[in-house]
Amino acid sequence: MTEAKTPSVAVNVAVFGAGRIGRIHAANLARQPGVRLKYVVDVNREAAAALAAQHGAQVADLDGAFGDASIDATVICSSTDTHSELILKSAAAGKHIFCEKPVDLAIGRARECADAVARAGVVAMIGFQRRYDPTFAALKARLDAGEIGTPEMLIVTSRDPGAPPVEYIKHSGGIFKDMLIHDFDIFRWILDDEAETVHATGSCLSDAAIADAGDIDSTAVTIRTKRGRLCQINTARRAAYGYDQRFEILGSEGMLQAGNMKPTEVVAWTQSAVAQDVPEAFFLERYRAAYAREMAHFYEAVTQGTPVRTSVADGLKALELAEAAALSWREGRVVTLGG
Amino acid sequence: MTEAKTPSVAVNVAVFGAGRIGRIHAANLARQPGVRLKYVVDVNREAAAALAAQHGAQVADLDGAFGDASIDATVICSSTDTHSELILKSAAAGKHIFCEKPVDLAIGRARECADAVARAGVVAMIGFQRRYDPTFAALKARLDAGEIGTPEMLIVTSRDPGAPPVEYIKHSGGIFKDMLIHDFDIFRWILDDEAETVHATGSCLSDAAIADAGDIDSTAVTIRTKRGRLCQINTARRAAYGYDQRFEILGSEGMLQAGNMKPTEVVAWTQSAVAQDVPEAFFLERYRAAYAREMAHFYEAVTQGTPVRTSVADGLKALELAEAAALSWREGRVVTLGG
Amino acid sequence: MTEAKTPSVAVNVAVFGAGRIGRIHAANLARQPGVRLKYVVDVNREAAAALAAQHGAQVADLDGAFGDASIDATVICSSTDTHSELILKSAAAGKHIFCEKPVDLAIGRARECADAVARAGVVAMIGFQRRYDPTFAALKARLDAGEIGTPEMLIVTSRDPGAPPVEYIKHSGGIFKDMLIHDFDIFRWILDDEAETVHATGSCLSDAAIADAGDIDSTAVTIRTKRGRLCQINTARRAAYGYDQRFEILGSEGMLQAGNMKPTEVVAWTQSAVAQDVPEAFFLERYRAAYAREMAHFYEAVTQGTPVRTSVADGLKALELAEAAALSWREGRVVTLGG
Amino acid sequence: MTEAKTPSVAVNVAVFGAGRIGRIHAANLARQPGVRLKYVVDVNREAAAALAAQHGAQVADLDGAFGDASIDATVICSSTDTHSELILKSAAAGKHIFCEKPVDLAIGRARECADAVARAGVVAMIGFQRRYDPTFAALKARLDAGEIGTPEMLIVTSRDPGAPPVEYIKHSGGIFKDMLIHDFDIFRWILDDEAETVHATGSCLSDAAIADAGDIDSTAVTIRTKRGRLCQINTARRAAYGYDQRFEILGSEGMLQAGNMKPTEVVAWTQSAVAQDVPEAFFLERYRAAYAREMAHFYEAVTQGTPVRTSVADGLKALELAEAAALSWREGRVVTLGG
Repeated sequence: MTEAKTPSVAVNVAVFGAGRIGRIHAANLARQPGVRLKYVVDVNREAAAALAAQHGAQVADLDGAFGDASIDATVICSSTDTHSELILKSAAAGKHIFCEKPVDLAIGRARECADAVARAGVVAMIGFQRRYDPTFAALKARLDAGEIGTPEMLIVTSRDPGAPPVEYIKHSGGIFKDMLIHDFDIFRWILDDEAETVHATGSCLSDAAIADAGDIDSTAVTIRTKRGRLCQINTARRAAYGYDQRFEILGSEGMLQAGNMKPTEVVAWTQSAVAQDVPEAFFLERYRAAYAREMAHFYEAVTQGTPVRTSVADGLKALELAEAAALSWREGRVVTLGG
Repeated sequence: MTEAKTPSVAVNVAVFGAGRIGRIHAANLARQPGVRLKYVVDVNREAAAALAAQHGAQVADLDGAFGDASIDATVICSSTDTHSELILKSAAAGKHIFCEKPVDLAIGRARECADAVARAGVVAMIGFQRRYDPTFAALKARLDAGEIGTPEMLIVTSRDPGAPPVEYIKHSGGIFKDMLIHDFDIFRWILDDEAETVHATGSCLSDAAIADAGDIDSTAVTIRTKRGRLCQINTARRAAYGYDQRFEILGSEGMLQAGNMKPTEVVAWTQSAVAQDVPEAFFLERYRAAYAREMAHFYEAVTQGTPVRTSVADGLKALELAEAAALSWREGRVVTLGG
Repeated sequence: MTEAKTPSVAVNVAVFGAGRIGRIHAANLARQPGVRLKYVVDVNREAAAALAAQHGAQVADLDGAFGDASIDATVICSSTDTHSELILKSAAAGKHIFCEKPVDLAIGRARECADAVARAGVVAMIGFQRRYDPTFAALKARLDAGEIGTPEMLIVTSRDPGAPPVEYIKHSGGIFKDMLIHDFDIFRWILDDEAETVHATGSCLSDAAIADAGDIDSTAVTIRTKRGRLCQINTARRAAYGYDQRFEILGSEGMLQAGNMKPTEVVAWTQSAVAQDVPEAFFLERYRAAYAREMAHFYEAVTQGTPVRTSVADGLKALELAEAAALSWREGRVVTLGG
Repeated sequence: MTEAKTPSVAVNVAVFGAGRIGRIHAANLARQPGVRLKYVVDVNREAAAALAAQHGAQVADLDGAFGDASIDATVICSSTDTHSELILKSAAAGKHIFCEKPVDLAIGRARECADAVARAGVVAMIGFQRRYDPTFAALKARLDAGEIGTPEMLIVTSRDPGAPPVEYIKHSGGIFKDMLIHDFDIFRWILDDEAETVHATGSCLSDAAIADAGDIDSTAVTIRTKRGRLCQINTARRAAYGYDQRFEILGSEGMLQAGNMKPTEVVAWTQSAVAQDVPEAFFLERYRAAYAREMAHFYEAVTQGTPVRTSVADGLKALELAEAAALSWREGRVVTLGG
């Protein structure tokens, strides 16, 4: 939609992780005028080779990638447990960083990363792609322009079409860190405020195996901000009708809603109903434009020094909220956030 | 919704026709503060008796009703072939008149009625209830207020849920006089202009018996007005999803659409679709509010001398368009309207 | 919409309170085939006289109304502080009771009422009109029919167009008893479950005078039910776009939403936007059909002995939730409900 | 959205025309796995050079492009008056052809092209991109699957955001050939039927200069098909709210509508309205996905021999309808189509 207006600047990139999201980021990066995908690193050599071939890159291992001084930036799409190590390595080597969420499942470790990138002075961006979504970004811009006055209340609905395998859930850090981390980031971004108290409750309603793994699949979270604004988040691992990503913000002079996107604009009128499409199937479809804009944003930050919209500090803040929510849920009480 | 603000003025009424629409008009009239339903006249004495009982009226025959000098107004809901006679009788007796459409199937006879009520100086209103519909009336008011600049093009969609019995169709005067007469009135009202040329075509697609009766069930009509504005009307005797009553008007600065009404605002999201209610079932449900406002309008005209929105002259004009359209269809040519 | 199918049974009624809602109930009652409005009681004699005149009733005082043994039912629309007294008097006199919400601001007193009507064996119905709303009732019926499987999560949005005068707020019992009581009833009705824990928080964001009166204008409530289902309620005393009454329920097989109603179905397409009507202005407009059905339901219960959908026990349960929520808000903690 | 599933086959392409649409087609072609853009031809050498540089192609003139035997396909996006010459040259040289609409403004010449490509046996596809639009294509597939029974009536709304310069209009062949040609193609595709009679009328309502150029800016066309189905098309050169591309088809068992697409799913509720985005600005935005799929379709046809959805014969048929409509408008009569 938007054509790059910036003069092409050469940027050499190493991509870590050749899975689903790695392939998407690689393709979007490749579209930036000056980007050269130099290395793809993945323990799955076959996946690495396929992705490398597609973009004229080479397969490398960690040492190979970090040993090449010409690499300007790393794009980290590998498994969560490798994020912080790769961020620290990249920062130490003075390379710009794009890293998928979360920074790390452990807050201490995430803080270490935030400190490291700050010291290194590199561009470091976390993959909260929702902030780059055309609908969400337009809503935010209109909110900031004062269209509905002062924000007062935010309602976030965030439901997946189905739960991931229980094996995944066991290593996910729990629903608050794995799934709601995006919603916590939306909360901070839209309300432009920080949490004072968090209350979370939840249930396991779709699959007993999730409860057996110590997790829940449905949550209801309430945040009250330092300025007294209210936020309610509701999430579910399973919505029969598909991926549901909506939010609405009530302001002193009106309300802005961000609705779901549909694959087509067909409406069918039959004897029983007037029917429209269910929402885009899942995040890859729903956030296709967001992923493209995210990489353009990263490229712009790297080449022009513009600030990133989703920093490692943002990743850290979302993680703190996830921890607080998990604590609230486990102990059945309201949690007050420090500082 | 709107409570009568006028002081109650006593009006004695005789209702002709105790069928479905007669019962609706009687109930709406009875709600006007000063109306007294004095007589119900119907060849079906049982229906007349039931309706009379409901409103504390008496059953009468024609002579009885017209013989009572205290009757101020007649409400004519009897069969089409009695309309003109009752209009002429009422006008001659100096009684105010509400008459269902059409004035008459024969234009000459309709003109006679228009002349008679003009001479008599009585209030005479034709039941084009759509002009009183809250949605349609709001659209018209906004159009007249200049919200979309100068009107240029009108698209009217008018579909019934199912065809009436062929026996009815045989005596209906044909689809143009029976069904499109409402659409022709909408055309004149919304565009505030008169037809210069009419083209109509059509087909019989739902039931061969309609073709055997010399009629069609689907039409496509185009009108070009004296000021060069365009109007397209599409109608069908059968829409599987129910009663479809929409129109839209393109102006130099925008468009106004009047959409269907739904029984409820429930939306169901399931695996296959996001589904809303089909439209209100048929005219009795769709135009419930319109019928109520129509009678309030008649009462106001009778008691306060305000002009009627749908005069006998309007009924005549719609009939002329129906004749022109029928001629265009039969002869396969564009018809130019006189005067 | 629905015509009474029941044979007319004579019911003599005394109406207490000739204010806005009293006039609506009186008009809806008057439409029931066998109802005779015999007395209107109000400390404002002028208002009482006007309403009595409209329906051929007489003005009476408490003793007059209760002294007439022919009175079958009382309709209590007077100020909140008179509800329980009139309920108890009516029960003692063996009269059927319709009473506006709340039963009483004090739970003990409300329990007394519940006991009294149970002992008396009279029909006793509380004015939770939302349960009679066509959209809400259709949603509930479809939910009960299994259209979306097992209910899991309920999101209720309930916003008024503007706050009432602070004087009113001071005697309202607080936002949870005054405003959310309807939402608590919706929660119990839709989820068909009882609360186990309640968490409530809130803020005063629109008018400092409300905070000075010890109340808030914005709330966020979360309920977890005995069966582990989740409910989030968000309310505001002021929504710039008008009265906002929506809810949605996520089930194991889909979602049902109840949307706002609009005055008209006009859509305007102009250079800046595609615009529809804001919602119906306030409860009198939004719940017009609900109020009519509510009285028909009461009449049916009185004349046919059918059970009421909104009992005094329901009123009591909603009140208990309001107390728990207020406690949660004041003490900043999760409240567990007894029993 | 759809990834190419076909193995990459090398196809060498020459693009004629480096204007707006040429650049879009070139970019979409370049994404096909085996396509090599070898030449860009344009009288504007600068535009040609820019586009060639972007895709690693060379600038060539006509002789250069046609002189290279390795060229497999030509993509013709140059001005309308060059289409037929380039089609004939390509066919003579045995090259596959993609050509923007129209084939030619003169029917005789368009027939010559249809004959030539048929004799040559090359793939020859006309750029009726709407047939490749995800919404329109989904509607067509659902129609063909019988979702609404037998099609009976088609209503097409086709409005541009603003008229092109009068200089363009003068050489456009008139509104029927320039603008409605797409709508005529939609008509044939959706109804899968041919016209028996055509009636067209129109007006010049937006700019007198268009009338001075002998053209109109608003049209209303009605087609009755050989099987008695009805189609109404309404078009305008100017819609203040933007590009309006809708159609709906009534079938014996329901209706399918294709609605406009919006840039975002933001909804704003303010005091005056509930407002959504106006439609995508113009064809480049609205049909972005369609253009991409169109080129993928062409590539598939070239490499796999699959039939094209939009043939030169389709281009010819649409042109015949445009001629018939223009005749009907000029002479004010119904035109019957031959054979």
